[in-house]
Amino acid sequence: MRHKVLTESVESLAGLDSLQTLFDRDTQVFRMPSERVLAEIVDLMRDVMFPYHYGETPVYGDTLKYYIGVRVDRLARLLNEQVTIALQYECNKCPNAHQQAGEVTQQFVARLPELRRVLTTDVVAAYEGDPAAKNHGEIISCYPVIKALTNYRMAHELLLLGVPLIPRMLTEMAHSETGIDIHPGAQIGESFTIDHGTGVVIGETCVIGRHVKLYQGVTLGARSFPLDENGNPIKGIPRHPILEDDVIIYSNATILGRITIGRGAQVGGNIWVTHDVPAGCRVVQSKAKQETTK
Amino acid sequence: MRHKVLTESVESLAGLDSLQTLFDRDTQVFRMPSERVLAEIVDLMRDVMFPYHYGETPVYGDTLKYYIGVRVDRLARLLNEQVTIALQYECNKCPNAHQQAGEVTQQFVARLPELRRVLTTDVVAAYEGDPAAKNHGEIISCYPVIKALTNYRMAHELLLLGVPLIPRMLTEMAHSETGIDIHPGAQIGESFTIDHGTGVVIGETCVIGRHVKLYQGVTLGARSFPLDENGNPIKGIPRHPILEDDVIIYSNATILGRITIGRGAQVGGNIWVTHDVPAGCRVVQSKAKQETTK
Amino acid sequence: MRHKVLTESVESLAGLDSLQTLFDRDTQVFRMPSERVLAEIVDLMRDVMFPYHYGETPVYGDTLKYYIGVRVDRLARLLNEQVTIALQYECNKCPNAHQQAGEVTQQFVARLPELRRVLTTDVVAAYEGDPAAKNHGEIISCYPVIKALTNYRMAHELLLLGVPLIPRMLTEMAHSETGIDIHPGAQIGESFTIDHGTGVVIGETCVIGRHVKLYQGVTLGARSFPLDENGNPIKGIPRHPILEDDVIIYSNATILGRITIGRGAQVGGNIWVTHDVPAGCRVVQSKAKQETTK
Amino acid sequence: MRHKVLTESVESLAGLDSLQTLFDRDTQVFRMPSERVLAEIVDLMRDVMFPYHYGETPVYGDTLKYYIGVRVDRLARLLNEQVTIALQYECNKCPNAHQQAGEVTQQFVARLPELRRVLTTDVVAAYEGDPAAKNHGEIISCYPVIKALTNYRMAHELLLLGVPLIPRMLTEMAHSETGIDIHPGAQIGESFTIDHGTGVVIGETCVIGRHVKLYQGVTLGARSFPLDENGNPIKGIPRHPILEDDVIIYSNATILGRITIGRGAQVGGNIWVTHDVPAGCRVVQSKAKQETTK
Amino acid sequence: MRHKVLTESVESLAGLDSLQTLFDRDTQVFRMPSERVLAEIVDLMRDVMFPYHYGETPVYGDTLKYYIGVRVDRLARLLNEQVTIALQYECNKCPNAHQQAGEVTQQFVARLPELRRVLTTDVVAAYEGDPAAKNHGEIISCYPVIKALTNYRMAHELLLLGVPLIPRMLTEMAHSETGIDIHPGAQIGESFTIDHGTGVVIGETCVIGRHVKLYQGVTLGARSFPLDENGNPIKGIPRHPILEDDVIIYSNATILGRITIGRGAQVGGNIWVTHDVPAGCRVVQSKAKQETTK
Amino acid sequence: MRHKVLTESVESLAGLDSLQTLFDRDTQVFRMPSERVLAEIVDLMRDVMFPYHYGETPVYGDTLKYYIGVRVDRLARLLNEQVTIALQYECNKCPNAHQQAGEVTQQFVARLPELRRVLTTDVVAAYEGDPAAKNHGEIISCYPVIKALTNYRMAHELLLLGVPLIPRMLTEMAHSETGIDIHPGAQIGESFTIDHGTGVVIGETCVIGRHVKLYQGVTLGARSFPLDENGNPIKGIPRHPILEDDVIIYSNATILGRITIGRGAQVGGNIWVTHDVPAGCRVVQSKAKQETTK
Repeated sequence: MRHKVLTESVESLAGLDSLQTLFDRDTQVFRMPSERVLAEIVDLMRDVMFPYHYGETPVYGDTLKYYIGVRVDRLARLLNEQVTIALQYECNKCPNAHQQAGEVTQQFVARLPELRRVLTTDVVAAYEGDPAAKNHGEIISCYPVIKALTNYRMAHELLLLGVPLIPRMLTEMAHSETGIDIHPGAQIGESFTIDHGTGVVIGETCVIGRHVKLYQGVTLGARSFPLDENGNPIKGIPRHPILEDDVIIYSNATILGRITIGRGAQVGGNIWVTHDVPAGCRVVQSKAKQETTK
Repeated sequence: MRHKVLTESVESLAGLDSLQTLFDRDTQVFRMPSERVLAEIVDLMRDVMFPYHYGETPVYGDTLKYYIGVRVDRLARLLNEQVTIALQYECNKCPNAHQQAGEVTQQFVARLPELRRVLTTDVVAAYEGDPAAKNHGEIISCYPVIKALTNYRMAHELLLLGVPLIPRMLTEMAHSETGIDIHPGAQIGESFTIDHGTGVVIGETCVIGRHVKLYQGVTLGARSFPLDENGNPIKGIPRHPILEDDVIIYSNATILGRITIGRGAQVGGNIWVTHDVPAGCRVVQSKAKQETTK
Repeated sequence: MRHKVLTESVESLAGLDSLQTLFDRDTQVFRMPSERVLAEIVDLMRDVMFPYHYGETPVYGDTLKYYIGVRVDRLARLLNEQVTIALQYECNKCPNAHQQAGEVTQQFVARLPELRRVLTTDVVAAYEGDPAAKNHGEIISCYPVIKALTNYRMAHELLLLGVPLIPRMLTEMAHSETGIDIHPGAQIGESFTIDHGTGVVIGETCVIGRHVKLYQGVTLGARSFPLDENGNPIKGIPRHPILEDDVIIYSNATILGRITIGRGAQVGGNIWVTHDVPAGCRVVQSKAKQETTK
Repeated sequence: MRHKVLTESVESLAGLDSLQTLFDRDTQVFRMPSERVLAEIVDLMRDVMFPYHYGETPVYGDTLKYYIGVRVDRLARLLNEQVTIALQYECNKCPNAHQQAGEVTQQFVARLPELRRVLTTDVVAAYEGDPAAKNHGEIISCYPVIKALTNYRMAHELLLLGVPLIPRMLTEMAHSETGIDIHPGAQIGESFTIDHGTGVVIGETCVIGRHVKLYQGVTLGARSFPLDENGNPIKGIPRHPILEDDVIIYSNATILGRITIGRGAQVGGNIWVTHDVPAGCRVVQSKAKQETTK
Repeated sequence: MRHKVLTESVESLAGLDSLQTLFDRDTQVFRMPSERVLAEIVDLMRDVMFPYHYGETPVYGDTLKYYIGVRVDRLARLLNEQVTIALQYECNKCPNAHQQAGEVTQQFVARLPELRRVLTTDVVAAYEGDPAAKNHGEIISCYPVIKALTNYRMAHELLLLGVPLIPRMLTEMAHSETGIDIHPGAQIGESFTIDHGTGVVIGETCVIGRHVKLYQGVTLGARSFPLDENGNPIKGIPRHPILEDDVIIYSNATILGRITIGRGAQVGGNIWVTHDVPAGCRVVQSKAKQETTK
Repeated sequence: MRHKVLTESVESLAGLDSLQTLFDRDTQVFRMPSERVLAEIVDLMRDVMFPYHYGETPVYGDTLKYYIGVRVDRLARLLNEQVTIALQYECNKCPNAHQQAGEVTQQFVARLPELRRVLTTDVVAAYEGDPAAKNHGEIISCYPVIKALTNYRMAHELLLLGVPLIPRMLTEMAHSETGIDIHPGAQIGESFTIDHGTGVVIGETCVIGRHVKLYQGVTLGARSFPLDENGNPIKGIPRHPILEDDVIIYSNATILGRITIGRGAQVGGNIWVTHDVPAGCRVVQSKAKQETTK
């Protein structure tokens, strides 16, 4: 009896009808990038960006090259494989996925030193923004923003190289780990930092300058989706805020729509901003009345 | 000397006095469901609900049945074992825990195809709600709401079948992973979706209709606990909101108490709502004054 | 060709120039505490604090001592090793790091029974604060606050013992797991609890009394950093709130600066508080106007 | 096409006809003891018998009890489970397998100190027999005979307690590891040792006294199986040699049948012995002629 | 200093000169089949041949098909991959290795039911040859000959299908595990068995009939290699013995050269045989004189 | 009751009396080299000696250096740690074990290229001795002699450097894996090979020239131990055979005592040799009479 229930359930679950809606395209390729492999890629990336900091081996001068070499080589292999899968899924048995993946991987590997340089500016920004931090090592090992930005900067690079699916998966993995949700399409300048981070949302078409700082719970979102004449959302239209250099947004502020927060402006906590803020200005909530009762 | 410190500490930690408060019942059964095993159950569940999407093997037509069969069989074994432990913990050596666990498992296995059907409506809802999404596969692999709902819908089913402890553990695991905290007792209709998700809280007695959408930071909570004549909270009284079909709640809104948000109503971001909202209405915050200073 | 790209990238990544900024001190010790080992330490700590609850073995009376003994012994070894690494990183080849680590470990081991006692009061507080909870076991296995507090109380103890880096890493691990971000420097009394928890931030110089309860999204933060005459933030100045006994802070409230929330006071949700609240008072937002449009 | 080949092969392999001969009894219990679990049991046994020698943790005085306690407890659990499976396989759903397994396990646990005592005599015998050995620790960690005897003495004890299948599996595991094939039914006295060991075979009804030493390649076998009136081998008849105390058998000697090698006798290498050897005698091959050609 | 020694050693070890002799062919493909993957293939093969016996899951009727299906599918994937590597190594970038590997795999999968049938005759032969054995299950789980034959029969099949390297690696893995060294080229009939097994060697061109039994230490070897006119060994010439049906060879006998042991003949232990033995005959050593001295 | 049996057994097993004989020296250091770590060292050694052959990654030209570098570095760390443990065990808290281990490790690392060179001659010898072998890669991946010699040559080197315990453990690990038992003290020239190998024993003071070949089951042993005036075996006296260059010993031959097998001599199978064999001679057994009965 018990077995009958099980086999009937299995038959139903494996039936094509049951799966029809999930597969919304005319595809015979049923394979997607693996979250487990992407997690290894992220670990390798962090080790390569910040050697000594996450690795457990006390690597010293002359051997560092060996360790980085092995990690970059493995990172390249795994990335090549996952990008191939993502391209095949996207274009349904696209014929030159292997070749394209090889080129993407090569370009990504060549960009690693530049990614290190930019992430180093983020470490310095976090360090300078927090008087309690004692050294850069503490920032790298204890501050969630560094993990979130390593994933984001890697994902953004892959997005620029035309890789589907994987960029979004990478930033979502950082979202799960840190509570910081950055869309891989956002453009974020150097020396960027986020304090605490839980609940931060940075939308797809955001443009963020240099030396910008956010606090926990900040949303940089869209107001609404412009619709085309058929009532469908128009894709690719800029709909998220622009933050110029040196902007600070305090905790739980919500900035919505394609507005500009000018250079050096500050937005106070818990504020809902839907209009431009001029450079150098400070926007704070007019004191809400509160009632104190005994 | 060092050893003496250690053994004294161990003796104290293993002493019954030291543990007395932790075990608040007259029990001799000291065993609880294992988070590690529940994590494997969740992995199996996700693979069975969305074959191809999380699994790393490129499964093809004829072999899909084998893979689903093995996973459902293992899921059934593990669930049977954990439900037994949970029942025994709950009722303290309850005599027919094994039999009851067997029945629960069988009923749960029989419900799997229906759970797949409902979760598919959630995938479609997330897809249709986000113009940026390219296909259902992207939704399943990249959107945290799908993981949170898979755990929740599984947990809710087990709660209806009378399983203690485990439903709460399952949704808490999704809470840790996604920042979305749904109580397994909440009733949630088909085609439900949450954007971003971090900070969302959905309380135990919520009733949510079809095609409802929430954004990050939304709380559907209780205002206060009704007390009985002895000043103790009365259990089981509906104390969380009702959201009818087609409702949208924007980010960081807080909806408290047993109120009803009528069909098609929309609640703006950062709003604190403690009264009913009529069907079709839109509630937004009257513009708070903000001061801009240079 | 492909190999050339890889080796060039590796050479650049392993070059000292490329790493110069990351290592901001004159150091030859390139090793930091391992997150993987700290994760095992946390698992051991939780098993020792709450035997039976996380462990998968049904431990019974006479053998409990063996299991706790092995876990405490392993915890002591791993902690000793990690504290040594942290001390060496901090003081750059400091000569007596091994001895100091041994002393710290011994003192920490001696404190374990007291840590259990305090954590038990937190379990009871969570249980009494939630009418839905059926027993202490459910609290320990399902409520994220217990995990966050186990890490915090362990980290705070190590901070008091002079351990660098590790306390912050431990609370950050709990932050990632639960969304609750408690600085290890905060002082938190017995019987403390947090409901749901996502987004809670508790700053470094907070002082929290007994029987205090927070809800999700609460920030106990600093207003600004007092600067010294050179414009640098002055370290160690109290800049976060004091919460006296029996205080309740509702969801998403933001309490900023070195203010005092008096004994038994309650702060309503979504409020921004920057001034003292007298004992026994209740602060709520004066009803914000909301517009309902059809 | 490829899928068809696979599914046809699977159908055939899973068909009952295909399996009929393998299952030679009217059984519905298709489960046997697990080699993987038995391997863990052997590891635990070796650690308990020779603490410090195989374990990797530097256990010291006061904590030794904890480590042995945890290992004995786990050994008891695993053994209990595997003995239950073996009994059920043997008697086909035998109703009191659980109870019987519990009793066997308890008696085995009670015998552990005596097994340690006897194995210690084996260590001393190996040490005294090899002038090159520097200490007992070297014997335990480097000499295969100690591993073979630990498995054998454990297996023999379980055989005496009525456990089917497992004793044979345990000695076969040692056979694979060391090339020494001892039937668990053999009776072997204290202070027994084997040098090198590869190719040694000790049959089921052997009786071996104290202080006996064998070299590599020695067979203690049966000549033929006595048949009953129907021509079937009669089971349980003693058919292997008796070696009295202080016997030495040199390499590759073959001793066959229920003969007695008397106290203190020595049998030279490469000899084929099928008759009794009196006590104190030395049997050597009469010099075989060899031709030396250039 | 220490680092210099290491880097110099590494430079030397990675130098092409240092590796020149190891790579005796003009190859740019440096990859060989993986012993680790082959070990998994062997485990899958044993589980598929003898379901229930090595697997740890209590598989029951209706689910057996799922388990076998998943295992055969994985076995096919892994084999496909390893055969591709072996073909590429053999023919140095041979262009159609992928296609050929696919065909080999498919033919091998189709042969699995026949391999099960033959291995079952081996189980029955071992069972009938040992009066102590209680059932077929005991034979499968405890007798090394079954493991050796599973590897051999698999390897022989692959050899017939033209696979290089892997057949030899498979039988060598069984040699390491059981001490039984069977060349994959040997032809061995049904119902074959070996008792104990350590030290048995069966050469490449052996031809063994049905119902043949060997004991431990038996060598079926070559006398010498026939040389061609240049003094090089001629490959592929039959140089090992033929054993007709029902032959028994007792322990440590050595049978050398292309001789024939006739149907039903028996060869006694420790004998050196280099000439034909007629059918039905029994060859035993004329009693060697032994000297007994006191 | 059951618990009482267990705790009594544990108390007894952890008691010092029970362990007294096992620890035959006045020691407080209870730690020995770990077989698990040594197994990793062996894997690293094999990968470094024969890159591409055991590793699973398809390493190509430019990256080979990275892979070898990381493996040699890890090998050096692990060896350093294990040698320290072995030295401390040997000399009981010997004060400069760390320094001595560091020197040993450094010298061993410097010898790696020479070890590769010698092992390559062994590969060539095995290849030239077996006409069936197709290339050096097949020898390395399929022939047990290469594994046995890699362990032996490593162990011999460590023995020369004064390392206790570990050399013997390394060769015993190869003994378990291949059935070939070579004492690390034996001196073995280049281009050495063993066919099949099971049962081969090579004693501590053997001296073996170049281009020597052994077959399975060959023993190169001692006849007896010379005793000193007190009747104790005298250590360090040469007691095993000398085999000069180009010697061949056929299967199961036993060569005993400090005799010399002259250059180019051959010893036939199953022979027992206790006297010198002149150079160029061939010793074979005079045909033993065999009786053939029908």
